[in-house]
Amino acid sequence: MLLGTGNVASHLFQAFSETEDTQVVQVYGRNQKALSPFANFTNTTHQINKLIDADAYIIAIADDAIAGFSNQLPLHNKLVVHTSGSIAMNALSNQNRKGVFYPLQSFTKGKKMDYSSVPFCIEAEAKNDEKLLLLLANHISKKVQLVNSDQRKHLHVAAVFVNNFVNHLYTIGEDICTNNKVSFDLLKPLIQETATKIMDLSPTDSQTGPAKRNDKQVIASHLSMLENKNQQDIYTILTQSITKKYGNQL
Amino acid sequence: MLLGTGNVASHLFQAFSETEDTQVVQVYGRNQKALSPFANFTNTTHQINKLIDADAYIIAIADDAIAGFSNQLPLHNKLVVHTSGSIAMNALSNQNRKGVFYPLQSFTKGKKMDYSSVPFCIEAEAKNDEKLLLLLANHISKKVQLVNSDQRKHLHVAAVFVNNFVNHLYTIGEDICTNNKVSFDLLKPLIQETATKIMDLSPTDSQTGPAKRNDKQVIASHLSMLENKNQQDIYTILTQSITKKYGNQL
Repeated sequence: MLLGTGNVASHLFQAFSETEDTQVVQVYGRNQKALSPFANFTNTTHQINKLIDADAYIIAIADDAIAGFSNQLPLHNKLVVHTSGSIAMNALSNQNRKGVFYPLQSFTKGKKMDYSSVPFCIEAEAKNDEKLLLLLANHISKKVQLVNSDQRKHLHVAAVFVNNFVNHLYTIGEDICTNNKVSFDLLKPLIQETATKIMDLSPTDSQTGPAKRNDKQVIASHLSMLENKNQQDIYTILTQSITKKYGNQL
Repeated sequence: MLLGTGNVASHLFQAFSETEDTQVVQVYGRNQKALSPFANFTNTTHQINKLIDADAYIIAIADDAIAGFSNQLPLHNKLVVHTSGSIAMNALSNQNRKGVFYPLQSFTKGKKMDYSSVPFCIEAEAKNDEKLLLLLANHISKKVQLVNSDQRKHLHVAAVFVNNFVNHLYTIGEDICTNNKVSFDLLKPLIQETATKIMDLSPTDSQTGPAKRNDKQVIASHLSMLENKNQQDIYTILTQSITKKYGNQL
């Protein structure tokens, strides 16, 4: 049972559809229009009191709505899980058995995805529920792990660094290219290679560049070329962090 | 003619070997031992006065040695180019025709690479030399562009952001995982997807996360979870930069 009709709900629905041994018996959503893409494939409802019986109820809605919504569910002693990286399992209502079913990936609306490589972070109060969630996730993905609420919160912060912040550095790279009339496409193979390199090698070992070498001349010349204080501040703080880590302060 | 025996020289040698229409007639290196991997395939020398005739002399040595080395070359009116992102073409000695042959990629020693997708940034003083360098690069790669010294310097700074600094954010992600006893492998599909997403979509449009939403509650909770001031400072400055860019300051 999927509760939600947004991006994560759509991708989970698609992922379950591609398995042979699991079935989404119903999709619930407040908004009738948002239910229509699901209606061709399974039972749908916009009435919270019309939920049918299921082995697990997967809440896939906005983080700040999870706790309140779980309190409104007309269910008792069912397995109710959420799909959020940043919300603790215990935010869920006590009236049901609690769990987490968190796919650690950035889903793009409408973009196909190989779900077998999406890591699923599983947590449950009860051993039997943990087993069921592991089984469900293993039907979808080859990368399923038990992760407790505290670990998951930290994973989520780490994800902000390697996803949100990395994307912002790409944006700065694009801005520099645009301002100097060179194509950002020239940097794309380097961006791909930087990501691919750390699949086998620790990023600690693959660090290169003027900051690691503490090459003060190149660093000063780079700073003088940057167009605004914001870029300079980011350049400086990341350079200092790298220099400190690799101990090259002279 | 390749002048140098390091990482970039090795990769360029390999790249030229894979073409049908170009030939590295000689490799020069000060260090005789470093020449031995090339000696099975072409003429090599460690004596600067034994350089033979070639259409182009490609200097692939450390940035800060390029200018001095180009002055020592016993050549006159030959096409001498360097392969550096950060050194101006005019740093080369006036005794020869100047050019630049800059492959914009992070090469790993010994790691195979598809050179056809490596961007080559070409520059030359003379039109005929520009033509020759374009021809040479086009034999190797499908992504060859004319880029002047000023543009190339800025590209190089942009590369620091999308390669060196991005890799450092990966390192912070890994540190957070290690400290919380979760596998960094869980983040790798997200890292790949973050890089892949911007191949077709501008990074400006693919930005997500609490900073873009200016979600002060999540941001405060993340800051409280980080283990040291360095991580907190980086989190804060990047969050501010994103929030400013997307204009969500309330």
